[in-house]
Amino acid sequence: MHNKYLDVFSKAIDKLHDENRYRSFANLKRISSQFPAAIYTDSEGNEKQVSLWCSNDYLGMGQNDKVIRAASDALLQMGAGSGGTRNISGTNSEIVKLENSLAHLHQKPASLVFTSGYISNQATISILGKLLGSCIIFSDENNHASMIAGVRGSGMEKQIFRHNNSEHLEQLLKQSDKEVAKIIVFESLYSMDGDIAPIKEIISLAKKYHALTYIDEVHAVGLYGKNGAGICQLIDVMDQIDIIEGSLAKGFGVMGGYICADKIIVDAIRSYAPDFIFTTSLTPSICAAALASVEHLKYSQIERQLLKQQVNKTKQALKEQGLPILSTPSHVIPLMVGNAKKCQLASELLLKNHNIYIQAINYPTVNKGSERLRITPSPFHSDDMIKRLSLALSDVWDYLDLPKTQA
Amino acid sequence: MHNKYLDVFSKAIDKLHDENRYRSFANLKRISSQFPAAIYTDSEGNEKQVSLWCSNDYLGMGQNDKVIRAASDALLQMGAGSGGTRNISGTNSEIVKLENSLAHLHQKPASLVFTSGYISNQATISILGKLLGSCIIFSDENNHASMIAGVRGSGMEKQIFRHNNSEHLEQLLKQSDKEVAKIIVFESLYSMDGDIAPIKEIISLAKKYHALTYIDEVHAVGLYGKNGAGICQLIDVMDQIDIIEGSLAKGFGVMGGYICADKIIVDAIRSYAPDFIFTTSLTPSICAAALASVEHLKYSQIERQLLKQQVNKTKQALKEQGLPILSTPSHVIPLMVGNAKKCQLASELLLKNHNIYIQAINYPTVNKGSERLRITPSPFHSDDMIKRLSLALSDVWDYLDLPKTQA
Repeated sequence: MHNKYLDVFSKAIDKLHDENRYRSFANLKRISSQFPAAIYTDSEGNEKQVSLWCSNDYLGMGQNDKVIRAASDALLQMGAGSGGTRNISGTNSEIVKLENSLAHLHQKPASLVFTSGYISNQATISILGKLLGSCIIFSDENNHASMIAGVRGSGMEKQIFRHNNSEHLEQLLKQSDKEVAKIIVFESLYSMDGDIAPIKEIISLAKKYHALTYIDEVHAVGLYGKNGAGICQLIDVMDQIDIIEGSLAKGFGVMGGYICADKIIVDAIRSYAPDFIFTTSLTPSICAAALASVEHLKYSQIERQLLKQQVNKTKQALKEQGLPILSTPSHVIPLMVGNAKKCQLASELLLKNHNIYIQAINYPTVNKGSERLRITPSPFHSDDMIKRLSLALSDVWDYLDLPKTQA
Repeated sequence: MHNKYLDVFSKAIDKLHDENRYRSFANLKRISSQFPAAIYTDSEGNEKQVSLWCSNDYLGMGQNDKVIRAASDALLQMGAGSGGTRNISGTNSEIVKLENSLAHLHQKPASLVFTSGYISNQATISILGKLLGSCIIFSDENNHASMIAGVRGSGMEKQIFRHNNSEHLEQLLKQSDKEVAKIIVFESLYSMDGDIAPIKEIISLAKKYHALTYIDEVHAVGLYGKNGAGICQLIDVMDQIDIIEGSLAKGFGVMGGYICADKIIVDAIRSYAPDFIFTTSLTPSICAAALASVEHLKYSQIERQLLKQQVNKTKQALKEQGLPILSTPSHVIPLMVGNAKKCQLASELLLKNHNIYIQAINYPTVNKGSERLRITPSPFHSDDMIKRLSLALSDVWDYLDLPKTQA
């Protein structure tokens, strides 16, 4: 490699160090049946047991017996891979069942499974735009990177509305050509701030201005609604959203993403999106695990109830220690630091002194100046663990001289 | 949904029907330990056993005992999911081991695993271009859709060279500004034609014109080279390629993709590519399975030997029946039809009358007019199966009045 290339890449890495946002990945070996416990291995190979407080396996479904058994059975019966793209030998029996189950969950005629939520968003939004030929995509300013990739990939005109601001969205819709096709893309639950979109207002605007609606329920599926179909089920508007996108990797605890919509839309995405067409499908084992998880959470309420309870207890405990958490209506608890260096130090101190793992969240995941620890309790975080977390955080806050609120 | 949208999507689907390239996915349940056998379920729910002749699980590693055991052990020990992106709790112990194993395989200092080969290419090529700021990407005209997505995503200038044509590549390099950064992106083995790139010539040109080299070995890893590191190992040039990209879903039989390169390049991709950063990592079980497969194929030669032997026997048997296969130096056997409708019919007849599943390959996977059946033998396709395949194909060819060659 010529030195001129080495220089460019070295400088790119130096920049991250200078801005205190170089990322070292924590090597973690989860202990199934003891979630949220995991073995952490440091850069020298030393191991110790830690508690995870930032996993997106929100309900601990990754260690659910039914889920593991389903995955294991499929593995033994069908092998480790699917062997191809969906069209070329890769449509395994389990992915067909999973898609039927997801369509049923969201009460839509059809569903399509992708290898990740990122690809679900990128592939669907970009090909929707391309198929419409000319259209305007109205996108919430806080939308996930994958939705932004989809909007960019479509090559269509975009209009960014202020976060969760339906008045601003209406201003933009009003100014737009009536005849042009429109898509409003937004999330139900924004994962970094834990806030929820004004979904009903957005649906009204979509009707008024004849726009398609695309909602990302990635951080809500499994967790909200009586069958775990997300916020749209909770507020009873699933039938009024055109395309619902979700994740199999968070509330459902496995991996992959999906969309649910009318047959004709799913058929179009399936037939035209290169990022779908040219990707080997999820393995039978992953699909079987996800199916077991989705089906379990359709009917079991205990995980959702316990999650809510332990989240409330955690919020209360952190408030009592004067820790500056954002007030949220959801299971996500952002604890604000606002400084990349101190955020990183807080994470390191928690790990070193308290055996608690909470990743520092920095740019580009959140804006610079809004660095935070993002805390995600689960049904398996006990009262005692919550107490230890709040004391550990309080200790770290004092040590780093970070501001506290009035308890 | 407003009717105007429905119309657009309906017309897009009608177009596919009109062009005889509407795709119905075949529902297949592979039978582990009996590969290439699978249970096919038709649209009415009827089941029958078929032989797969178009899987990309080229070596049958998806049913390898060690691979299944490794996946199963990881599942039971660590659970079904990773629980997060690589940075936020998702760097599981197995993905770390897998990356070390892949770096060792390709004799590079570092490696990075993605959820698919598509994303490996898209993420890496696009961010390489973006980091260089200004550069020209020289791309083979037959490059895979994911590489094209990467080139587009980079926003950089692109120059398309004629397929496997190093003279044309040199013309383009010669005309380009000497001072501008350059990347040559190409595949070692093109999967639809089964042909192999002039890798040594391209490396010479890259040195002469100070270009970075990026090679996709997706259809070669596991299959070629004494440790299964691909064509670059076979011809002993691994150390002269800057970035090697591979798949865990084909020769290795599981799922996922990866790159291997210098530490600084991997660090840059890892730190800057949004499609890597914002995606939940592969599950511990998938990584453990892939690791077992990679390690097995580093030292075991029998799969590669048997593959070569059965591929040669298949080529010979098809030629003897006068079936117009492309002559290839690889394990891929393209049987040319050149007509979307007849290609689809051939595939249907094989399935209906002969219990053989070979997917028709049509646009956009190959150019219009070059529709084909793409046949991929494995070490597990017996001599008897090869004989039955050749007779079945001959029968279908006669029935559809498709041209044969002189035997």
